[in-house]
Amino acid sequence: MSSPTPDYEALAATNRRLHRLEHLQSIAWWDQAAFMPPKGSEARAAALAELATLLHGLRTDPARQEQLDRAGQEPLDETQRANLREIRRELDLATALPASLVEARQIAGSRCEHAWRRQRPANDWKGFAANLREVVRLAREEAELLSQRLGVPRYDALMQRFEPGMSNAEVERVFGDLQTWLPDLVARVREKQASETVLVPQGPFDVAAQRALCERVMGLLGFDFEAGRLDVSTHPFTGGVPEDVRMTTRYRADEFLGSLMGTIHETGHGRYEQNLPREWLDQPVALARSMAIHESQSLSFEMQLGRHPGFIGFITPWLVETFGPQPALEAGNLQRLVTRVEPGFIRVDADELTYPAHVLLRWRIERALMEGEIEVDDIPALWDEQMRDLLGLDTRGNYRDGPMQDVHWTDGAFGYFPCYTLGAMYAAQWFATIRREHPQLDEEIARGELAPVFDWLRERIWLQGSRWTTAELTQRASGSALDPAHFRRHLEGRYLG
Amino acid sequence: MSSPTPDYEALAATNRRLHRLEHLQSIAWWDQAAFMPPKGSEARAAALAELATLLHGLRTDPARQEQLDRAGQEPLDETQRANLREIRRELDLATALPASLVEARQIAGSRCEHAWRRQRPANDWKGFAANLREVVRLAREEAELLSQRLGVPRYDALMQRFEPGMSNAEVERVFGDLQTWLPDLVARVREKQASETVLVPQGPFDVAAQRALCERVMGLLGFDFEAGRLDVSTHPFTGGVPEDVRMTTRYRADEFLGSLMGTIHETGHGRYEQNLPREWLDQPVALARSMAIHESQSLSFEMQLGRHPGFIGFITPWLVETFGPQPALEAGNLQRLVTRVEPGFIRVDADELTYPAHVLLRWRIERALMEGEIEVDDIPALWDEQMRDLLGLDTRGNYRDGPMQDVHWTDGAFGYFPCYTLGAMYAAQWFATIRREHPQLDEEIARGELAPVFDWLRERIWLQGSRWTTAELTQRASGSALDPAHFRRHLEGRYLG
Ligand SMILES: [Zn+2]
Ligand SMILES: [Zn+2]
Repeated sequence: MSSPTPDYEALAATNRRLHRLEHLQSIAWWDQAAFMPPKGSEARAAALAELATLLHGLRTDPARQEQLDRAGQEPLDETQRANLREIRRELDLATALPASLVEARQIAGSRCEHAWRRQRPANDWKGFAANLREVVRLAREEAELLSQRLGVPRYDALMQRFEPGMSNAEVERVFGDLQTWLPDLVARVREKQASETVLVPQGPFDVAAQRALCERVMGLLGFDFEAGRLDVSTHPFTGGVPEDVRMTTRYRADEFLGSLMGTIHETGHGRYEQNLPREWLDQPVALARSMAIHESQSLSFEMQLGRHPGFIGFITPWLVETFGPQPALEAGNLQRLVTRVEPGFIRVDADELTYPAHVLLRWRIERALMEGEIEVDDIPALWDEQMRDLLGLDTRGNYRDGPMQDVHWTDGAFGYFPCYTLGAMYAAQWFATIRREHPQLDEEIARGELAPVFDWLRERIWLQGSRWTTAELTQRASGSALDPAHFRRHLEGRYLG
Repeated sequence: MSSPTPDYEALAATNRRLHRLEHLQSIAWWDQAAFMPPKGSEARAAALAELATLLHGLRTDPARQEQLDRAGQEPLDETQRANLREIRRELDLATALPASLVEARQIAGSRCEHAWRRQRPANDWKGFAANLREVVRLAREEAELLSQRLGVPRYDALMQRFEPGMSNAEVERVFGDLQTWLPDLVARVREKQASETVLVPQGPFDVAAQRALCERVMGLLGFDFEAGRLDVSTHPFTGGVPEDVRMTTRYRADEFLGSLMGTIHETGHGRYEQNLPREWLDQPVALARSMAIHESQSLSFEMQLGRHPGFIGFITPWLVETFGPQPALEAGNLQRLVTRVEPGFIRVDADELTYPAHVLLRWRIERALMEGEIEVDDIPALWDEQMRDLLGLDTRGNYRDGPMQDVHWTDGAFGYFPCYTLGAMYAAQWFATIRREHPQLDEEIARGELAPVFDWLRERIWLQGSRWTTAELTQRASGSALDPAHFRRHLEGRYLG
């Protein structure tokens, strides 16, 4: 072979194959959530398991480790080096665990999740805890093996699956700061809002009209419908492939804001995917940087833009056109409605201000659990203590709306929760930067001129893919490291300003 | 290994893998036709090509030929022997052609089809013929290689891809018979219908209402919506997998019968797939027998049932409920409408009686072409001669509605056309048998009691999968070999009775 980089090219060729086969996996997942009839599930599971085995074999082929070692000596340009870094990262994660552990973890995870679906409505903590103990035991084994491979503490090692380069010390730095001011801010906002009147829009709201509205707003947000779709699923998500993004939402006849705000959120994920760097699209360097950075895009759309008073003012006439006039469909009222703060038990129903409290308590518990400082049986008391401290709520005996409410732990996805609030913090930092560079930003948003926002995100985040580590990306995009002060200023400005 | 049938089991294991991976291929195809946005097509094509390469590698692994040879000596039961026969058949077809020919054929096929899309509207026979000559040249090479491998004449060898076990001598026997009486029957029916008055239903017909009607009729026809769906695509088809059948149709606002009858047709394909033998579903022995037998199911539904006066009478009230009353929506008128005979240029628009004429002429031309008796340049004159003889139409100079109307030849699918009319003949033979065994059949159909039909088809056709050769299946199901007299009696009874 006359190429000066034969080993790099061999690695890239395998990634190209993986990218193409993962395309079929993504479309099958999307179909499963959005369209597949119930009796198709067994055959689909078998088909996806077959492909997963095949992909795992391609990914962990021992030849790749040797190619990786040799490719490091080849004359590569900067992007190729970044790609090599990402390939190495994926290979480390894929080869650190023996197949027996991967299988045991999958079995325990499905058993726990499956039982959880009926244990949660029954508030059956005891039954749930029995399965969760096995999931935790295996996750700790995984954490130990990943820790050895990656040379970082166990919880940090688990986080690398979702948030490469993030350390628990860094999370501690920003979440520690958050914890000092969040409960007090919630209390002050609650006091301020106590005297406000908020009208709730009265349905029914035609589902076809809601869909048209969602698509209209997606158009305003720059979603490319020639390279993606919006469909319906029980749990909204953004899937598909960068070249063909499949978003879902769900509609209720009695309420439209949940679906609209959810669609705005997913559109943030969708535009990130649609604008990843094309020339590297079949290589890891072109993938989205991390889960927190992904969430920083959805929250840029949903929180920074979607709950911006100028944005709400701009789309209010569309709501009136869609559903007809009613007193609640007035910009000021809608703005109060989408920024209403109300401590509650359920994370996914939480408002912008109390959401981080839900993440804080989960992070504290799952970290301690993975480091072996606490056991599954300790969770309910810790949960109650923190809900009390952070949001003033009593959760004793209410496991269903307490530690049993999320699906994450059933699957062993420990280390994921911080991404949500890290994403909110990054989003606030991006918008602080955009506003610094575009002093007219708020007026532009109020006129529906969103190009400055999209141009900035495209240039600084989307088109960067995984060329930089998250820390480098953050520095290059905003001029500084992640700083929770931006999030605090954003929340204080919006909720107390 | 202590199993007495290790080689059979190795073959079956590979087939299981193929079945699972082909599942993802089928769903991706369906999505491509029904939902994929335009900018997704390049990535999809690359993904499907990658999977095709992978599947081809699995299918043609040289170890399989050795396993096949040894498995023939193993103690297998009857179904396993049938499965082995089908595996051998597939392997013969998959390994008879060198990769270079497969690739050349694909390239020539896509080039011809792609150019055809604009050449057809432009009536550009010359341009089309240039590409078709290359497709024909490669198809002849394929025919020669398949002929050597299978030990049958060249055109017969090509037919094996669609209609295993069928010989051109057999087609000659039944189509030769057909040709003796069809033109005269068409003429007599035309004369009889000349004095009939037929009203055409007046639209617009709401598309959502049409969809609901189609799904209601699919329900009457026993389609299992828990194991399949109905969606929309430009070219209606039945895809997906036996465990999850994906049907499509298309709607027009000014006309509903085309979509309804098309849906009834596809439901026949769909029920065949949904009722293939479950316990062997990941093996070739469980697949549908052949394209003609598949078409015999869709035509059993569309022609034998769907145009049966009792069936039309039974669903007419549903049409009135759906679209409101109008004079055309009366059972007698609808029956006359769906059995109206009108010679025309276009095969896909042809009625039940003239459709076989379109197939006859294509079969005569493509067989002679493949056997080297004629060349591409001879096609228009032969086409015109036969359209004149069979249907009394002059097609001179009208290539667009003549030999350029079908997509089949552009892709090199020579040997497929006979399946349509063989399917119609099989369907007539099945119904003659059902009627013989259920003398009350016509009254039952008129009451919407279709269980006797479905029980018969399930038992005799669907659940048999590919356990028997088509000749054996026909004999077992109906007590005799394929006999075109049933088709003739059906047509004479319906159109002259
Ligand atoms: Zn999100
Ligand atoms: Zn058909």
